[in-house]
Amino acid sequence: MENFAFYNPVKILFGKGQIANIAAEIPAKAKILLTYGGGSIKTNGVYEQVKAALTGFEVLEFGGIEANPHLETLLKAVEIARSQQVDFLLAVGGGSVLDGTKFIAAAIPFEGDPWDILAKQAPVTAAVPFGAVLTLPATGSEMNTNSVVTKWETQEKLFFASPLVFPKFSVLDPETTFSLPIRQVSNGIVDAYTHVMEQYLTYPVNAPLQDRMAESILQTLIAEAPKTLANLHDYESRANVMWCATMALNGLIGVGVPQDWATHMIGHELTALHGIDHAQTLAIVLPNMLDVKRDRKRQKLLQYAERVWGLVDGTEESRIDQAIAKTRDFFESVGVKTHLSDYGVGLDVIPTIIDRFEKRGFVALGENLDVTPQVVEKVLTLCA
Amino acid sequence: MENFAFYNPVKILFGKGQIANIAAEIPAKAKILLTYGGGSIKTNGVYEQVKAALTGFEVLEFGGIEANPHLETLLKAVEIARSQQVDFLLAVGGGSVLDGTKFIAAAIPFEGDPWDILAKQAPVTAAVPFGAVLTLPATGSEMNTNSVVTKWETQEKLFFASPLVFPKFSVLDPETTFSLPIRQVSNGIVDAYTHVMEQYLTYPVNAPLQDRMAESILQTLIAEAPKTLANLHDYESRANVMWCATMALNGLIGVGVPQDWATHMIGHELTALHGIDHAQTLAIVLPNMLDVKRDRKRQKLLQYAERVWGLVDGTEESRIDQAIAKTRDFFESVGVKTHLSDYGVGLDVIPTIIDRFEKRGFVALGENLDVTPQVVEKVLTLCA
Repeated sequence: MENFAFYNPVKILFGKGQIANIAAEIPAKAKILLTYGGGSIKTNGVYEQVKAALTGFEVLEFGGIEANPHLETLLKAVEIARSQQVDFLLAVGGGSVLDGTKFIAAAIPFEGDPWDILAKQAPVTAAVPFGAVLTLPATGSEMNTNSVVTKWETQEKLFFASPLVFPKFSVLDPETTFSLPIRQVSNGIVDAYTHVMEQYLTYPVNAPLQDRMAESILQTLIAEAPKTLANLHDYESRANVMWCATMALNGLIGVGVPQDWATHMIGHELTALHGIDHAQTLAIVLPNMLDVKRDRKRQKLLQYAERVWGLVDGTEESRIDQAIAKTRDFFESVGVKTHLSDYGVGLDVIPTIIDRFEKRGFVALGENLDVTPQVVEKVLTLCA
Repeated sequence: MENFAFYNPVKILFGKGQIANIAAEIPAKAKILLTYGGGSIKTNGVYEQVKAALTGFEVLEFGGIEANPHLETLLKAVEIARSQQVDFLLAVGGGSVLDGTKFIAAAIPFEGDPWDILAKQAPVTAAVPFGAVLTLPATGSEMNTNSVVTKWETQEKLFFASPLVFPKFSVLDPETTFSLPIRQVSNGIVDAYTHVMEQYLTYPVNAPLQDRMAESILQTLIAEAPKTLANLHDYESRANVMWCATMALNGLIGVGVPQDWATHMIGHELTALHGIDHAQTLAIVLPNMLDVKRDRKRQKLLQYAERVWGLVDGTEESRIDQAIAKTRDFFESVGVKTHLSDYGVGLDVIPTIIDRFEKRGFVALGENLDVTPQVVEKVLTLCA
């Protein structure tokens, strides 16, 4: 295994009723800005639980953070937080609200244009502390330092990370997810699955525990997904999917191993250009990325085929083909389509994506830095 | 799964050469007390690496912390730290040095008799911060809040835990373990394996990810143990065992599931009374505890038999028998004997242990609180 540093100080409060316990995690007398999305928390009871838990605190509100949160929206929250001298943020929502709140937290004390945090990877040297109440298991944002923000004006979807934007705490109450639209439940499963694959499906470095932990999450998602989709109020399966999504991207399965993330980089462009849901882009790209990179990923593909899908018979190529087909079938089985054409997008998107990558100085992606623009073209062609 | 809170802010620096990076993790101008054990760090190069990394800091030293660290020894370190106004501790050694240093850290600012932290579970309200350089993978102390200390005068081995005694950082460099006596390597494997079993081998609560992660550690230990024992300088297998030992007891596999720990409680008495190594006591007790509690543990025993040992044929009783036998054989295969008689201890120890438990007000142990003194007697009788 490779050398690594691991640090994750997020406190997780998991299970039904945990929202009631958040006051103890927030500094006394904090002036709180409650951030949320399209308002579903006001119809599913979560807002009332949060407000009740915050009795005694001064609470401002900022709603309307959209999916793939927009810089333009988030800067309005920054302005409010600055002018009102907010000193704690509480994100209530899914990955977009959490990612957006991370950006707000870092932008409030930032001197200069906050977009530089993403566009120029300007160092984050301070951030307002924040907590989270997660209502959509998917991105893992509740237990990591990552944030993805979209500049609407230029349709750019960019990333930053800083240990200063770890949530102080995250509440994971599976009951808050019961009222999610089924499309978001499905997307969350595919998102978590792909997060694991980006850290697992590379090349072996003799890290058997990390491998087995990654396989554990994949196997659990495969077993629990049909249960949670068959009964959207099944607490147990929802809880298991929720914990899988957090463990998929809290850093643990990725320690000491190579990581890929080319699928995500390509997917972000599809979202930015065509508004395809993040998880949908992953479902489109991942199977074809595995197919195109099958030689460099061969050993892990065979391990994945055997341990996750029980494929032990036939030639290597056939086992790899079947494992990729099983992956695609799994995504389709949870209701996420895997072709560009399913979303009304044609192959004319390819030159635009290549052009954008090249303009940003991108040479090659992936764990071997060999996913060149030519390879991206090949992958996207298979996505038709 | 059950509700849970999880929090673990320990920074892990894993891999060869990581000792060189510790200065960045220690507050500038800290006055450091370096704590260590019997002096092996002065012959295997670790001491020199640590001293070189601490250039510029004022460093005092306290050596001689023994296995099953003694209250009497640790209080001497507390006295030095108080009189010299030490404000950071650096533990360099195995679980005993780390556990002992946790106690020192909590005892320095403690008002009253520090033994009360263990004997009366007096609340820890402050602790001197500390880091660790781990040289013996086994106890998991490098990434948790637990500490076990022995009062030599009365032969009592007691436990305390507090989030204030999380190490600020822990260095895990597999190379520092190359010079360990083989007995300690063997003990470490059994210790880590049993830590997993205490959290896994109870009853199912529909927590499939925790189950699979626990099985991942067991499978990895089973695969890596023979490699690391066959070549004590095999970096890769040593690294994998080391990471397994940390993951076995950093809290993650135990979230939201019932836990047992009866084997540990009985084992502690065998160590306190007869000086049997901690891991040796676990190897003696665990197989018989599984045997005696086979009815309440039935479902998990069958799952363990199938997933960890591949046992799918035969009656339930036969699969359980085989799984227990495999567990015992694994311990013996890594060189840890599994019978009291192997250590020259007779069954006359039983009434003494029962008497000690009863004097401490102990009614019953285990995940079902049904390991009564009568059950302890039954288990220990099988340990002959």
